[in-house]
Amino acid sequence: MQITRTADVGVRVMTHLAMHPYGARMTVAKLADQSDAPVPFTSRILQRLVVARLVVSHRGCEGGFELARGARSISLLDIVAALDGPLCLNTCLPGGAGCGRKAWCGAHGVWANAQKALAGVLASESLERLAATA
Amino acid sequence: MQITRTADVGVRVMTHLAMHPYGARMTVAKLADQSDAPVPFTSRILQRLVVARLVVSHRGCEGGFELARGARSISLLDIVAALDGPLCLNTCLPGGAGCGRKAWCGAHGVWANAQKALAGVLASESLERLAATA
Repeated sequence: MQITRTADVGVRVMTHLAMHPYGARMTVAKLADQSDAPVPFTSRILQRLVVARLVVSHRGCEGGFELARGARSISLLDIVAALDGPLCLNTCLPGGAGCGRKAWCGAHGVWANAQKALAGVLASESLERLAATA
Repeated sequence: MQITRTADVGVRVMTHLAMHPYGARMTVAKLADQSDAPVPFTSRILQRLVVARLVVSHRGCEGGFELARGARSISLLDIVAALDGPLCLNTCLPGGAGCGRKAWCGAHGVWANAQKALAGVLASESLERLAATA
């Protein structure tokens, strides 16, 4: 029960982007260096953050990466979900038909509560605050 | 960020043990059947629960598995930790020297808070209650 290295580094990359004035562009090389991660790995993470619409990529000699919106409106949960997928503490939790044991399994509700508590903490933490305390 | 299938099945196995009077013994075959899991997999889980001193194993024709102590004193966190290891939401969290970035990383404290929230829910849920609501 651990976030992936992708999400761990992704949060650091986003934090470094948020430490610069909104609209400032940063290169992969600089973000990788500041996030203490290899350039190719950081590049793959940035591509996924672009797909998730948390980051915008610009080409050209003045190109680079910048936040797609203000850091105040991006939560830690947004970043983790973009890189690790929606929080899912146990396979029985996704919506829809879900787990066939739900009706009798005493643990189902507890997994749901634990996931809610975890998501609550991650959702309440904005990237702006992360950058301010970094 | 998901518990393993081992912990998922382990919680069901422990719940079924707790649904019987304290001191009652159950066979692997019965526990596997009731927990909706293969016998060899259930057997390996039981061995790990024995090592963690949550379950006691008895040999012989009246042998089987029983809880090592009352279900009220066993939490969901005890079971998850016995099977998946201590909760560790991110590699930066273990005690001791830990992560070299701790001093400047804004996310460190949030991972710690999220883990505390998660552990809190799992620790507050007793096996006795799980068995009663199953």
